[in-house]
Amino acid sequence: MSSSYYAQEIHGPFERFDLGDFELESGEQIRDLKLAYSTFGILAPDRSNAVLFPTWYSGTSKIIEQAYVGAGRGLDPEKYFIILVNQIGNGLSSAPSHTQQPFNGPRFPRVSIADDVRAQHKLVSEKFGIEKLALVLGGSMGAQQTYEWAVRFPDRVERIAPIAGTAKATPHNKFVVQTFIDAITSDPAFEDGWYREGAVHRGLRRHARLFASSGFTPVLFNTSAWRDIGFTSVDDFVTGFVENHFLPQDPNNLILLLQKWHGGDVTTATGGDLKTALAGIKAQTFVIAIDEDGFFPVKDIEAEQKLIPHSVLKRVSSIWGHLALFGIDAGYNAAIDRHLKELLAA
Amino acid sequence: MSSSYYAQEIHGPFERFDLGDFELESGEQIRDLKLAYSTFGILAPDRSNAVLFPTWYSGTSKIIEQAYVGAGRGLDPEKYFIILVNQIGNGLSSAPSHTQQPFNGPRFPRVSIADDVRAQHKLVSEKFGIEKLALVLGGSMGAQQTYEWAVRFPDRVERIAPIAGTAKATPHNKFVVQTFIDAITSDPAFEDGWYREGAVHRGLRRHARLFASSGFTPVLFNTSAWRDIGFTSVDDFVTGFVENHFLPQDPNNLILLLQKWHGGDVTTATGGDLKTALAGIKAQTFVIAIDEDGFFPVKDIEAEQKLIPHSVLKRVSSIWGHLALFGIDAGYNAAIDRHLKELLAA
Repeated sequence: MSSSYYAQEIHGPFERFDLGDFELESGEQIRDLKLAYSTFGILAPDRSNAVLFPTWYSGTSKIIEQAYVGAGRGLDPEKYFIILVNQIGNGLSSAPSHTQQPFNGPRFPRVSIADDVRAQHKLVSEKFGIEKLALVLGGSMGAQQTYEWAVRFPDRVERIAPIAGTAKATPHNKFVVQTFIDAITSDPAFEDGWYREGAVHRGLRRHARLFASSGFTPVLFNTSAWRDIGFTSVDDFVTGFVENHFLPQDPNNLILLLQKWHGGDVTTATGGDLKTALAGIKAQTFVIAIDEDGFFPVKDIEAEQKLIPHSVLKRVSSIWGHLALFGIDAGYNAAIDRHLKELLAA
Repeated sequence: MSSSYYAQEIHGPFERFDLGDFELESGEQIRDLKLAYSTFGILAPDRSNAVLFPTWYSGTSKIIEQAYVGAGRGLDPEKYFIILVNQIGNGLSSAPSHTQQPFNGPRFPRVSIADDVRAQHKLVSEKFGIEKLALVLGGSMGAQQTYEWAVRFPDRVERIAPIAGTAKATPHNKFVVQTFIDAITSDPAFEDGWYREGAVHRGLRRHARLFASSGFTPVLFNTSAWRDIGFTSVDDFVTGFVENHFLPQDPNNLILLLQKWHGGDVTTATGGDLKTALAGIKAQTFVIAIDEDGFFPVKDIEAEQKLIPHSVLKRVSSIWGHLALFGIDAGYNAAIDRHLKELLAA
């Protein structure tokens, strides 16, 4: 299953940028690191119109293309050169599932959000010769990467739009993420990560259901709003939409991503102090929160936004909660487009 | 473990009322049903001062006594005759763990909220000769039983105070409850309910963590407010408080209770129509909601309250969220006392 899922036919077309042996913040290395990415639009001669959009948990460049890129949208390929980059471990970029033994599966080293951003920085500089990005944005784990960009490379980003995510994972958020990891690893078929392909489906299904129970909102379930996308019952919806999303993915890949999410923290470079880290952001910042978000409450997002110099908080509402990110709510999509246009015009 | 947990030494003193063979709504029966209860105060000669308070999920009469009953409190034994009744399946009342084979463990029949209320009605009438209860109240599953009392026996209850619960379990609530059940039954040691004592502790621990992640609030975790009750880290708190609460309990008992919660629905007697069911309530009603409740959002509680003739919505706030019910938040306790005094004076 998983080998065919991560293919060009499903998620392409995408390119791969080869970074060679890449040293991680931990001191470990990924041998022959490859970052998969897709681009849309044309890079201006002065390279001033580049937008970078890294992926969220379990997503690829494909869903971001479908949900956010288009003529007349906030991210319009007529105007911008848009780079959708797949985070390390998502299966299009290097990942446990696509590494030769002996460093495959659970032996693939742990990766941090900072590692992704350092690798993306090389992609942007070396492959495209871009000095300064017009915009970095992303949702959820993409927001973590966005914040890391602005803190780590303050002079390389003109604007940022972190959506439904935080610069430093909160204790509650970490706790919830750990329940996702446990749902997968507690499946006896997981066997310390040395499972047979497809064997961990019970764990993945349980993980999917935990994801659904807070990722969506009570209102979505209680008003049967999932009917809008063609399902017939709560179970039909959760199985057909959420389990279906996770089942073809590789458990070790997902766990690598979840651990990265769990460890997301822009303050590693500033000795743990969030105030100092966020005060160093120079980019024009639209912090976007989803009012109904069960993973990233507005309160937590706003607390960080207040520490960022040139920032505004934009609140969006959706009965799809955190998973409005997927682009299934026309109201959410329109609001995001409006905010991105305003930010890009600034 | 479980056999010693459900003992007089820990949860007593309590009495047991013997109902003999008790026919359930399903047509099945519990042989030799016993309801465990504790009483406080003295029943007035005209039997007008009786209060009934059934237990919530995984709770017993003991914690309700500790959290809600006392001189000067809303439930003052100087004024009222207070009956704290243990719901069927909680281990003090008849339960899978305390039934002789062959009807023990997973062979114990499924029970509904209505079954509990029918059994409690017999206790109140036959044991104490009470015609009309001055107040029925309860939190969470106790609220489900409270609503069932008011709908099923409208002339037997003068006042009700359902706290942090619903008359009919919502689709989202049912979905969440099912993830709790799955966390236990997916433990290989569960063995279809024929586990060795203590063997299912991994499943119980996972279930405890899911319970904690929505039962408490993000703010509680993010402000380390668990320090107020003496813990040193998130993990120390969740293990020492929540895992510790569930580990000594019997998995089959908990599943029986969760299935009862899942099926909670006052409309079974009114052909599924909630409006009709709630319109029949004659009691003075204070519907109490906790603003931060992750299991029972205020929105869902209010939607039902509006269908109840003589009702008022009272909102209480607590960073302990749903689990403020446990009585750990002095602010919550004071607010509840205030509301109960007002209701009892009406």
